[in-house]
Amino acid sequence: MERLIEEFTRLPGIGRRSAERLAFHILKASEEEAMRLSQAVADVKQKVRHCPICFNLTDVEPCRLCASPARDASVVMVVEQPKDVISLSQTGLFKGVFHVLTGEIDPLSGVEPEDLTIAALLERVDDPTRNCRGERVREVILGLNPTLEGDSTALYLADQLTRRGVQVTRLARGLPSGSQLEFANPAVLADAIEGRQPMGE
Amino acid sequence: MERLIEEFTRLPGIGRRSAERLAFHILKASEEEAMRLSQAVADVKQKVRHCPICFNLTDVEPCRLCASPARDASVVMVVEQPKDVISLSQTGLFKGVFHVLTGEIDPLSGVEPEDLTIAALLERVDDPTRNCRGERVREVILGLNPTLEGDSTALYLADQLTRRGVQVTRLARGLPSGSQLEFANPAVLADAIEGRQPMGE
Repeated sequence: MERLIEEFTRLPGIGRRSAERLAFHILKASEEEAMRLSQAVADVKQKVRHCPICFNLTDVEPCRLCASPARDASVVMVVEQPKDVISLSQTGLFKGVFHVLTGEIDPLSGVEPEDLTIAALLERVDDPTRNCRGERVREVILGLNPTLEGDSTALYLADQLTRRGVQVTRLARGLPSGSQLEFANPAVLADAIEGRQPMGE
Repeated sequence: MERLIEEFTRLPGIGRRSAERLAFHILKASEEEAMRLSQAVADVKQKVRHCPICFNLTDVEPCRLCASPARDASVVMVVEQPKDVISLSQTGLFKGVFHVLTGEIDPLSGVEPEDLTIAALLERVDDPTRNCRGERVREVILGLNPTLEGDSTALYLADQLTRRGVQVTRLARGLPSGSQLEFANPAVLADAIEGRQPMGE
């Protein structure tokens, strides 16, 4: 029992009291529930791996997004991490495939381009057999964070990609939908002014 | 003393205790300080009015922004309220002039186009002598809130303005600068995907 409490304590955001509560819950739970949790914890380490094409987390190779004929593999959205794949898929607006960089270029923290999956991205663009279902990449959308590190990574990738003749776009920046202009900070307003869009009839 | 405390209590966010603290501060302050506050309160009601051209708050006519030869009066940014003029001027990126609607179209709350300064805006566009320093309006930027009311107002204005041959743009929507993609809500991500921008070399 003490060993279980200790293991729970190691998890982020779980203190001694919460760990005790969790451990006693498991003690009182059915054997089936306890084994399901135990197996799920073991499986996640043993079965979940990176997709060899897009580096998203998966339990099959290639992952379900790369394998799906319903998705347009000629449009690749580049994101920092697997969480971003979930957020962007949930909008239902993006029907292409992804490429997870597993980080952003950040020399101050020692993250160089070689530490990310950039080489694999360029191979997908250069050689259609390395892309999902053998399709040629037509457009790469840079879905990186609107931060210093995201911008550095986007600039580096745009340079590498445009010289390969592929179309490179990035997600729009500006006022977040539903917000009030009076509470927007100057950087957001500056993006909104610079990126202003024509309104037709 | 009791009368002053009561007056302070009427102000938003000031309770009885705060009102007492403020009143005692004034009692102890120099006569000069007390008179400056007294005069400032009186002046704001007696001297501040709406600029006859842009409807921003001002103590001179026309306001300093409309009168300034340093600003390009051929580009008019339409905003909801005077606070937005301050936010957008502070970016230092917008060198044009403003038009304050004094609200947004919101039929559910009974705000119709006639309740706003829309007629005056259209006159500025139709007749250069009604615009700041007699300049012809070339572009109208809709700097409205990215909300339901802001969007309805923008659509109404775009319709009225494009038929007058003036260029109509709106502020960009998308990811707010400095934010993390994983915390963006689906509406923000949808704007960011739909408004994606080409990245050149």
